[in-house]
Amino acid sequence: MIAEKMKNMVANSSAIRAMFEEGNRLAKIYGAENVFDFSLGNPNVPAPEAVKKAIFELLEEEDPVALHGYTNSNCGYGDVREAVAVSLNERFGTHFEGKNIVMTVGAAGGLNVILKSLINPGDEVIAFAPYFGEYRSYTNNYDGVLVEISPNTEDFQPKLDEFEQKITPKTKVVIVNTPNNPTGVVYSEETIKKLAAVMEGKQKEFGTDIFLISDEPYRELVYDGVQVPYLTKYYANTIVGYSYSKSLSLPGERIGYLVIPDEVTDSEEVLAAANVATRILGFVNAPTLQQKIVAKCMNEKTDISYYDRNREALYQGLRDCGFSCIKPQGAFYLFVKSPVADEKEFCAAAKKYNLLIVPGSSFACPGYVRLAYCVSYETIINSLPKFRELAKEYF
Amino acid sequence: MIAEKMKNMVANSSAIRAMFEEGNRLAKIYGAENVFDFSLGNPNVPAPEAVKKAIFELLEEEDPVALHGYTNSNCGYGDVREAVAVSLNERFGTHFEGKNIVMTVGAAGGLNVILKSLINPGDEVIAFAPYFGEYRSYTNNYDGVLVEISPNTEDFQPKLDEFEQKITPKTKVVIVNTPNNPTGVVYSEETIKKLAAVMEGKQKEFGTDIFLISDEPYRELVYDGVQVPYLTKYYANTIVGYSYSKSLSLPGERIGYLVIPDEVTDSEEVLAAANVATRILGFVNAPTLQQKIVAKCMNEKTDISYYDRNREALYQGLRDCGFSCIKPQGAFYLFVKSPVADEKEFCAAAKKYNLLIVPGSSFACPGYVRLAYCVSYETIINSLPKFRELAKEYF
Repeated sequence: MIAEKMKNMVANSSAIRAMFEEGNRLAKIYGAENVFDFSLGNPNVPAPEAVKKAIFELLEEEDPVALHGYTNSNCGYGDVREAVAVSLNERFGTHFEGKNIVMTVGAAGGLNVILKSLINPGDEVIAFAPYFGEYRSYTNNYDGVLVEISPNTEDFQPKLDEFEQKITPKTKVVIVNTPNNPTGVVYSEETIKKLAAVMEGKQKEFGTDIFLISDEPYRELVYDGVQVPYLTKYYANTIVGYSYSKSLSLPGERIGYLVIPDEVTDSEEVLAAANVATRILGFVNAPTLQQKIVAKCMNEKTDISYYDRNREALYQGLRDCGFSCIKPQGAFYLFVKSPVADEKEFCAAAKKYNLLIVPGSSFACPGYVRLAYCVSYETIINSLPKFRELAKEYF
Repeated sequence: MIAEKMKNMVANSSAIRAMFEEGNRLAKIYGAENVFDFSLGNPNVPAPEAVKKAIFELLEEEDPVALHGYTNSNCGYGDVREAVAVSLNERFGTHFEGKNIVMTVGAAGGLNVILKSLINPGDEVIAFAPYFGEYRSYTNNYDGVLVEISPNTEDFQPKLDEFEQKITPKTKVVIVNTPNNPTGVVYSEETIKKLAAVMEGKQKEFGTDIFLISDEPYRELVYDGVQVPYLTKYYANTIVGYSYSKSLSLPGERIGYLVIPDEVTDSEEVLAAANVATRILGFVNAPTLQQKIVAKCMNEKTDISYYDRNREALYQGLRDCGFSCIKPQGAFYLFVKSPVADEKEFCAAAKKYNLLIVPGSSFACPGYVRLAYCVSYETIINSLPKFRELAKEYF
């Protein structure tokens, strides 16, 4: 009875649901503390105390009709959009105004809004493997065609030669995600400059506009003082998608934004389309209380040291067992080389030790597995003996 | 640069934005208290005090990681879904379980989720004029074809003869909206029974499944003790879309639900598709704090007497001026016959008196205008002399 397009998706989705249910099943048998679930990117650092304070203040100060009402523009409250622009300008030396900001239902909502705004059926969307698997679904929602650049497993920076070859006159969008899910890699400034040059060249060659969408929910989650370049400064047709899911630990609240700079071709038209897309896709507006919360918490930070401790412990622990992976500079994922070619087999073996990890083929990069270390430190420490046992099967 | 599909929508949307901007412009010239904006369905009764109390309790009681985190299922928190099912069963004698409920980003989000789940390109979606204009956009999002049943301007109950003739083997969905936006009419039980019989007959005739989607954000807003039949009891393939936007005055917070009963054909598959659609359309899950709020406020009611007083005052006031309209039994709209055939001309004339009203052609029913009376009582009382002046141009 369901739509044809949905049938495959429902079938594939069951695999993920199956893993989740398997986790619950294992927790019932062995106790939750003996199941090590590295499968989900759900932050376990609580939202900053300032979020709670902001909510109390808003409930006391604001008229509930305005606080919980529709926003005048589908793009969000004017003052909130202005606050986002000011904050970005302060941090990155950009020159945005409130009008360049569209408040969205998280980054996932934002990506859907901008793809709906830009994509005609058959238009190509390029993503660099490994990439967040949902990009395929989002592209498919608007009958776009996802074109994959194969992974560079040396350092997981994008393969720019292959990229240049795969850009065609149908290429409308290129998505980058840095810090990256699933690798934790941050694209270097050198990479970004080269990528921008390739895209500029191809825009000229084909006389087309190619939009760079920077999906950056992990922007704030970086370690060792690494800098994440702000992409609008390197390439004019850049649109940024942001989420507070990770930076303020509000993933369930669905709050983020798009930045559509004036430098984008036909930016007013793109902004108008994003406004309409927000409405007709059923978002209507980003949740209003959450908009006001993030405006009050613009300079709050999550506890990076918590994730960093996890990162060090898990990275070292896995290396000591004999596993290999590059050390991530951002996000809260480790992307580990599977000791056998078929990483799904490895994931199945890990499950015998109550270790739940995600196969790399979910990110278009088979032969690897993703571990989300946004778990408790205890989970990491207690999982290491299990990883050691698992390793003995291979090394 | 924007998608072809969006171009018309952006153009049409500007007309509505223009009205909004016109309202702001007029307010600046004449003062906000001298501009009578009946254009928007934004409730002006504040959320019940219980909402604020619920938020305070939740922030004190709940672990923020759980309160603001992703829900385990994209359909929402298990306990919230269960609470919705229990409440519906108590009120309507239904037999839903938590699994039949999908928490959504308002009714607009829910309608998009279910249409994405069901519709193949070219499938027909039937709506009865006058209808909420967004149905056309939602259908278009999934390449469905909206088929319109012409309005019955006698009493605004649906034209069932025309309906029966327009159902084809391609008909996949029928949307009803009762209490109705823009007329305020409640479809009678007799109407519902006949409508169900027509649909049963056509399902048999064509060997197809035709889903009845009941879009009911206004269910709780009824007057004079009128009963709104619960449609799942009359037709097996019924899916309900609900929103707390009006009943708890939380339109900006984007919280509602779908009911997909076991009686729906392939209900498990439809539920699985709705779960996936919630994720891939970018909603991911309904905002989590709001889910928990509505679970705590399940039996709260908005102040119907406030809207009722407005309804009586505006209805009587307009009738006294010579305008004609049927008295609405629900929602917070009056659908008034334009004294001239071209109701856009009438809307333009009204604007001269700072009266902002919406042309019926936005609801596929030209020759009428919609007035949203979810405004202050003072706005209504102070607008009546203006309507009297306006009326003198015609009667």
